[in-house]
Amino acid sequence: MAYPYKKMTETDIQKIRDLTSPDRVAVGEAIAKEFYHDEMPEYGSYVPELYVEALNTQEVSAIMRYANENNIPVVCRGAGTGLAGGATCKYGGIMLSIMRMNRIDPVDHKNQTITAGPGALLCDIQAAAAAEGLMYPPDPGEKTASIGGNVITNAGGMRAVRYGLTRDFVRCMECVLPDGDIVRFSSNVVKNTTGYALKDLMIGSEGTLAILTEVTLKLIPAPKYTATLVMPFETMDGCADMVPEILKLSAVPTAIEFLERELIEIVERRLRKYFPVKEGTTVLIVMYDAASADELEEAVRAAAEAALEHGALDVAIADTPERIASVWEVRGAILEGMKADSVSQEECDVVVPRSEIANYVKQAKRIAASHGLRVEPCGHCGDGNIHTELLRGAEQTDEEWQSATKACLTELYALSKELGGQMSGEHGTGNGRIEYLEEFVGSRMIRLYQSVKAAFDPNLILNPGKMIRLPG
Amino acid sequence: MAYPYKKMTETDIQKIRDLTSPDRVAVGEAIAKEFYHDEMPEYGSYVPELYVEALNTQEVSAIMRYANENNIPVVCRGAGTGLAGGATCKYGGIMLSIMRMNRIDPVDHKNQTITAGPGALLCDIQAAAAAEGLMYPPDPGEKTASIGGNVITNAGGMRAVRYGLTRDFVRCMECVLPDGDIVRFSSNVVKNTTGYALKDLMIGSEGTLAILTEVTLKLIPAPKYTATLVMPFETMDGCADMVPEILKLSAVPTAIEFLERELIEIVERRLRKYFPVKEGTTVLIVMYDAASADELEEAVRAAAEAALEHGALDVAIADTPERIASVWEVRGAILEGMKADSVSQEECDVVVPRSEIANYVKQAKRIAASHGLRVEPCGHCGDGNIHTELLRGAEQTDEEWQSATKACLTELYALSKELGGQMSGEHGTGNGRIEYLEEFVGSRMIRLYQSVKAAFDPNLILNPGKMIRLPG
Repeated sequence: MAYPYKKMTETDIQKIRDLTSPDRVAVGEAIAKEFYHDEMPEYGSYVPELYVEALNTQEVSAIMRYANENNIPVVCRGAGTGLAGGATCKYGGIMLSIMRMNRIDPVDHKNQTITAGPGALLCDIQAAAAAEGLMYPPDPGEKTASIGGNVITNAGGMRAVRYGLTRDFVRCMECVLPDGDIVRFSSNVVKNTTGYALKDLMIGSEGTLAILTEVTLKLIPAPKYTATLVMPFETMDGCADMVPEILKLSAVPTAIEFLERELIEIVERRLRKYFPVKEGTTVLIVMYDAASADELEEAVRAAAEAALEHGALDVAIADTPERIASVWEVRGAILEGMKADSVSQEECDVVVPRSEIANYVKQAKRIAASHGLRVEPCGHCGDGNIHTELLRGAEQTDEEWQSATKACLTELYALSKELGGQMSGEHGTGNGRIEYLEEFVGSRMIRLYQSVKAAFDPNLILNPGKMIRLPG
Repeated sequence: MAYPYKKMTETDIQKIRDLTSPDRVAVGEAIAKEFYHDEMPEYGSYVPELYVEALNTQEVSAIMRYANENNIPVVCRGAGTGLAGGATCKYGGIMLSIMRMNRIDPVDHKNQTITAGPGALLCDIQAAAAAEGLMYPPDPGEKTASIGGNVITNAGGMRAVRYGLTRDFVRCMECVLPDGDIVRFSSNVVKNTTGYALKDLMIGSEGTLAILTEVTLKLIPAPKYTATLVMPFETMDGCADMVPEILKLSAVPTAIEFLERELIEIVERRLRKYFPVKEGTTVLIVMYDAASADELEEAVRAAAEAALEHGALDVAIADTPERIASVWEVRGAILEGMKADSVSQEECDVVVPRSEIANYVKQAKRIAASHGLRVEPCGHCGDGNIHTELLRGAEQTDEEWQSATKACLTELYALSKELGGQMSGEHGTGNGRIEYLEEFVGSRMIRLYQSVKAAFDPNLILNPGKMIRLPG
């Protein structure tokens, strides 16, 4: 079987209606255009042959069984907020939305967990935990993402320095395999060495191995105290060198971000959001959470002292909600600012060893300039995940922009590899980065990926053409 | 290819000598008997056809390439301290020791990591980190395990409540695939969404997918302050119910263990190590680490208060090295105590949801009694991983003991499954639990395991008969 896939017939369409309900199935013009692409239409816009909203695991199973038997590809779709062109019907077929599977169970206090359908929104999970004095720590920028999408792409976010990634909070999951069989990966236990770690393989598999239909997430007690420090530096080097100094201290920071002045000025000019610290060509923003006021004070004191010892021009401490907001609002508005400041953007979210951050940023600017592109790196300094936004100038033709970004990305990925980094820190491979993947990981690794894909999905029916290319 | 494997000939033996060095190859009687089994000879004792010590990745690669081409099975062996019968030559062939690949690189302070060969000992990694003011947190009981073994079995240990498992500290690894190809899974980065999460699949794969030849581990700043609380309770229920109360508090405990009085008395009687708290039928031991004296004091105060509120008979606080040692020495001597108190032992390390700990312990005792066995559950209350030691009475014949333990284990695993638990929390599947695995995870999951195994090792050349059975 596999490619070329079957073109869906009226019988196939009727069958999906029978397996679900006619009012949850759309075909042709009735399919909303937003389902053609994710948040990055640049990474592919494709028309599904059929769009269906499943209500439960049994429907997902029935659809998969039918599709697998009839050689019809299926792409599972959450909120569509991905940035890698992942949730798109590259080869037509069925777009299966799980957004109605958005049940959130009451918090399980004894196990400190919460169980939800994949369509529950991240912000609703966070709120449900908060209402019980608990916290679901993963905090990617997009709060209206589906939790299923977060899990299946191993979403990151700013608080990863202290708390880790989505992966670190997934206790167990229920999934539907490509042939329709329903399985559970692990259960609501803290550790598990029973069989292979397939739960961990599922996380980050971008909907190419199975469809997530329920997830149980670990929660933690919500920290009661928080403060944010802003440390301006004369140079990017000084700023990057501060990161290991911060991480040496006893208290583990929640987030460590960096911003260059240029980027701050774009946000101030375009969005009229003003950053409270005016000094420095680069600023490091460090956040601490703590269980007590004393603990917070000690963490802040030690960090401030270390910063002044290691060349910070000053240290501004934000410890009221208003002051904290004034810092993070600018950080949070960066993508919007860059969008306002350029015709279009292309994104690269490499991750490099922390020791190579300054080196990467400087070389990335040089590379972009050599291709006539403006680049504004910023991001998660605490984990080396540098969002390197390429900005299109008004004067560039489509062709110039496309060839320049392609050449630039090729060099940026090669640079990341050379520095011991990876192609993507949190946005994933999807469709948008697939052309760079083999060069990055090597042909032997691609063969391994293909074997793993075939182990779950021998007919290549699930989200084809993402993560790995179709053979031939 | 695959089973039946080739019986090694003199030519094969000579080839391995040529690929390595004659003084690092042993055959026949020259192979030490300790290499026939791991720490649990009950889980299988098998004679390797050839024993070889590799010095580097290239040798491992050359051996694997030859073995794969010639249908000779290979079992990679670390320190042999496993408890699942994993590192044994069930089907003969080559036992490949990586214990000479024990290089430990200097700590990388900028990235806060340490890189080592798989043969480095856990205790040496811990010491190397400590010498630089850092900590490698995973702390399974057996400190002379190889770090490679720890990684490939996802070793747990007592400090998992706060810090997590070995998995949480593996940044990246170099591996040799069964066909001899050398690959790297991830690199020294904090997060990575490039391709499938194969690093995570490797962790816990028990040497059945590839051979680990180098690992880079995350370190953290060593906590400066530590204290241990002992909370005696009237009943097991009261003790188990305390666990979620502890986890609700702002400070995250490093370890939460429980001991029943019966077990304490065995250690006191047999080993003359005395537990400082005499009250209670069950005691909860809670450890806190902290960055400052204030933080520690606050954590201890809150935990003690909560304990007294929730039925603890008393709270003893150990905050000097001597007092702390007096608590943990008894906890650490339990296996030795049980060995001294019985003819032989059989181990079961199920993990259950925290909410089911008391329920499991009570039912486990009933089940064991119904088979005429003595059982002493104890262990990691903070993560629901209950080591359920079955003890053989002097009066039991071999046959009685074997049939009773088998029947008892079957029921204990079924109980764990019924309570939403897993078969093994940290010891793994190996050879010892393979007969219970399918019943536990179901036949569909076993098929998935087989496909995953085949994706890495189509000739089934690597550690055959572990984790999954050979077909046919």
